[in-house]
Amino acid sequence: MQRLFNDPGAVIDESIAGFVKCHERWVASTASNRALKYKFAPTCNKVGVVSGGGYGHDPAFMGYLGKYMLDAVAVGEIFEPPSSQAFYTAFKEADGGAGVICIYGNYPQDRESVEQAIKLAAADGITVKAVVVNEDVASTDPKTRRGMTGEVLIWKVGGAAAAQGYDLGGIVAVCEKALKNTRSIGIGLSSCTIPQAGQPNYIIERGTMEIGVGHHGFSSKDTCKLRTANTTAEIMLDEITKDMPLTCREQVVVMVSGLGGTMQCEMNILYSRIYDVLRNRGVEVHRAFVGNYFTSLDMMGVTLTIMKVDNELAGLVDLPAHPAAMSDFAAPAPKNGG
Amino acid sequence: MQRLFNDPGAVIDESIAGFVKCHERWVASTASNRALKYKFAPTCNKVGVVSGGGYGHDPAFMGYLGKYMLDAVAVGEIFEPPSSQAFYTAFKEADGGAGVICIYGNYPQDRESVEQAIKLAAADGITVKAVVVNEDVASTDPKTRRGMTGEVLIWKVGGAAAAQGYDLGGIVAVCEKALKNTRSIGIGLSSCTIPQAGQPNYIIERGTMEIGVGHHGFSSKDTCKLRTANTTAEIMLDEITKDMPLTCREQVVVMVSGLGGTMQCEMNILYSRIYDVLRNRGVEVHRAFVGNYFTSLDMMGVTLTIMKVDNELAGLVDLPAHPAAMSDFAAPAPKNGG
Repeated sequence: MQRLFNDPGAVIDESIAGFVKCHERWVASTASNRALKYKFAPTCNKVGVVSGGGYGHDPAFMGYLGKYMLDAVAVGEIFEPPSSQAFYTAFKEADGGAGVICIYGNYPQDRESVEQAIKLAAADGITVKAVVVNEDVASTDPKTRRGMTGEVLIWKVGGAAAAQGYDLGGIVAVCEKALKNTRSIGIGLSSCTIPQAGQPNYIIERGTMEIGVGHHGFSSKDTCKLRTANTTAEIMLDEITKDMPLTCREQVVVMVSGLGGTMQCEMNILYSRIYDVLRNRGVEVHRAFVGNYFTSLDMMGVTLTIMKVDNELAGLVDLPAHPAAMSDFAAPAPKNGG
Repeated sequence: MQRLFNDPGAVIDESIAGFVKCHERWVASTASNRALKYKFAPTCNKVGVVSGGGYGHDPAFMGYLGKYMLDAVAVGEIFEPPSSQAFYTAFKEADGGAGVICIYGNYPQDRESVEQAIKLAAADGITVKAVVVNEDVASTDPKTRRGMTGEVLIWKVGGAAAAQGYDLGGIVAVCEKALKNTRSIGIGLSSCTIPQAGQPNYIIERGTMEIGVGHHGFSSKDTCKLRTANTTAEIMLDEITKDMPLTCREQVVVMVSGLGGTMQCEMNILYSRIYDVLRNRGVEVHRAFVGNYFTSLDMMGVTLTIMKVDNELAGLVDLPAHPAAMSDFAAPAPKNGG
């Protein structure tokens, strides 16, 4: 595996630096080298929206900074939680006087960091409420369930609700509703290579794939024969609907995210089957996202996320937003950020 | 290399099907199974903007269909030119009575297809003018130079000019001006694997890289030692500025595109150095695009494209546009397409 690095140990610093240089119209650095902000945050009296997590999930987390998405993010080392200081900095940068919502993934160390940072912010008079995303059905116990690509959709909902003037309690409520209606499952065709290690975390044998892989390069231990794209789509849908049944006439938002080493055509092919199966069951796809939204370095595989939406959630998902990493063509150059 | 396919021979059909299902708000199929259109094209009295080329370059070409970008595209087999019938269909779908501009890459077979299609369209009374993009400095003879990632920036310019009411002659002129000021160079760290072949086109030896690779999985024959990201950035800038000098106070648009197998962090790191070198030379980066804009299946490597811009070109690059593949979060649901 050949890579364009300088020093594998400096990947995060240098990637953040390049990201800020590329998106300097919208993104700004902060007092912490592991926290970044939307350049025009905070907005007075708008609830600040924050997330954070380990590095290695591009475009998450920093790529989602932007108008009506995330106001600030904390960045950890590769697959490691951000420090409480990084979260604390993000909270301060995002607070416009109406409090902050922190929407992040359910990993014990991330929880520790966030909870510590909430205490630090409270001492400054900043109220921070957390929504802990745990939508990965690979674990059967919701308490230990991980956050996966579903986080992106919860950020979208939270960012839009904040933009529309929901107060902190209202945003927590609508994000919890979104989370209750969201499930994900991942499949892996190869593991990923952490830059400093220089070799894959583990090997997925040729001709096999893993069901229930997470974002952090560990084996799910649930190996099966490598299936066609169509069968894989059906397996993934089954895993989700076993936990969250979908009934006729329900509306859903679908996100298929590559894990980094998967081609767009593979995702399109997989999605084609997902769409057909859902339609055959009478489920209506309100909106679909098919691309690299939450990766795991160079891992081959995909995650499938489904969120059931009512009119409120559908409207929040539909509100145009401008995450930095996905707005190169679409977003006007901001004057004051709005 | 494990992949999520059904039948490797059906990758294009199935990928197009999934793409259309995902983006059905904006994209529509046509009478040709190898031509797609922006759903709201044509716009009466607006010049239609068309491109096309072989498959394997996601998000090009179909991902750039959308408001103020491409009105229609022709899609070929993998790394093969689209048929003249596909281009002809695209021209008909894009024509709103003001003629059509076809902006495509300089490959002999693509030229044949386009020229044949232009004749077919002329018989229907549709005027089509072509801009043949040839900005890749890996070839020293401009006549045989290939079109590369620079095509995306010329589409952006052409799409914006058409949106602003330029007539066909005016769009040709501004696209030719953009092209005259655009150069690209590619480097490869690994070759790509064509789905039906199932193995890499050729091998780039570990510890080496190739300078001047194109988008079609052939060796550039110009091999050197694998360099750091910073040195690679400098080599790429040198290749471009040998052909198109950049002077102090000039404004440029920079595009760094991954070739499919390259991680976003690598592109960020490379761009960080490009930005620094340009700034040190007094060159101002008006706008940067760093991501997967024009890939070559799963190839590892990047292309660097630089366009010098005056006020007119800068304004056209800045006009918000909504290419389907990059507008999931940002674009409002169109009512009539506008």
